[in-house]
Amino acid sequence: MRDQYIAQIDEVLVSMADLVGKSISLATYALLEDDLAAAEQVIAGDLPIDELNSEVEEMASRIVALQAPVATDLRLVMGAIRIAGSLERMGDLAVHVAKQVRLRYPNPSIPAELKETFEKMGHAASRIVEQTAEVISSRNTSLADDMKIFDDTLDDLHRELFTVVLSDNWTHGVEAAIDVTLLSRFYERFGDHAVSVARRVIHIVTGEPYAR
Amino acid sequence: MRDQYIAQIDEVLVSMADLVGKSISLATYALLEDDLAAAEQVIAGDLPIDELNSEVEEMASRIVALQAPVATDLRLVMGAIRIAGSLERMGDLAVHVAKQVRLRYPNPSIPAELKETFEKMGHAASRIVEQTAEVISSRNTSLADDMKIFDDTLDDLHRELFTVVLSDNWTHGVEAAIDVTLLSRFYERFGDHAVSVARRVIHIVTGEPYAR
Repeated sequence: MRDQYIAQIDEVLVSMADLVGKSISLATYALLEDDLAAAEQVIAGDLPIDELNSEVEEMASRIVALQAPVATDLRLVMGAIRIAGSLERMGDLAVHVAKQVRLRYPNPSIPAELKETFEKMGHAASRIVEQTAEVISSRNTSLADDMKIFDDTLDDLHRELFTVVLSDNWTHGVEAAIDVTLLSRFYERFGDHAVSVARRVIHIVTGEPYAR
Repeated sequence: MRDQYIAQIDEVLVSMADLVGKSISLATYALLEDDLAAAEQVIAGDLPIDELNSEVEEMASRIVALQAPVATDLRLVMGAIRIAGSLERMGDLAVHVAKQVRLRYPNPSIPAELKETFEKMGHAASRIVEQTAEVISSRNTSLADDMKIFDDTLDDLHRELFTVVLSDNWTHGVEAAIDVTLLSRFYERFGDHAVSVARRVIHIVTGEPYAR
């Protein structure tokens, strides 16, 4: 019976990760194609993610009240609340990207020369959240370690973008510089949160102190 | 006995809020005075905040395992984990400010004409976290509502700063524009997290759904 409750909470977390994955992919598409409808879809799609976040907390409370979990189960229940919080924030970051597209529409949100950079960021972000979903459902801690690679890619791209924006060849002015820096930061933070979910899963599985 | 556990968890949350308050005040001082030592102190001061965050989770787990809390107590235990998470993130944002000071040192991090704006932001941020500590310890939900005022101030200052940076009178170039935008965003996010703590306290006290 207890296993069944735990399986349910894992299921909701994986659903959240799937929705966040769709959200960041669509946000990247909206950004690269200046697609307002796609951006609006990302923004509207945030509510179900927020609702799943609340649902995880309710499920965790129910498990605590009815099952008095201990050891791994207790770590899982507590950890699920944190994981859901991180996933919700990843959803918010996808919304931040989409809102930037909406703000600049019908103008493009990013200059043509940075499209490739953001395409790579979007790709890394989509991969990292797919991996996140898999880590949650499989509890495969070595997979969790691998996620660091995608996070490093996002960090590298973020730094690379600064070089472009601050070079003498930057002709798009201050506003565009701020726009792309913030957008790039959203992707970079997205990666950080994914890594923190992975660390949390490792903590649940091993019981070792939560590494930051 | 149960009350004692709950009081302990509240105490740790208030200690966290106090440390975060010191951290953002000192970070603002470092920013306004280009004070490297102060910036380093903020950065070093983050570890105790992170440790208190872990302590809250351990305390919550202990309460769940030993006391099987229900109703308000259970909401408090679950809510404490979220509140500690928000406070930790507020501490991180103070660190982000301090790291920016360290990055630009010995140069000033902000142009003279924006000092007043950041002074106001620092003031609002310090007040909002003081209020946060008081809301946590008093459970005064009307005080929680009031926090919105400081958050609005931070949002207004953040918008005001954009106007300055994007005006034709901005002579400090792209890098400084990006710097001050990010700094301003850190303060704005700081306020958002404080408000989310307040909402969480209202949820604990009233049991009404958590408003976003």
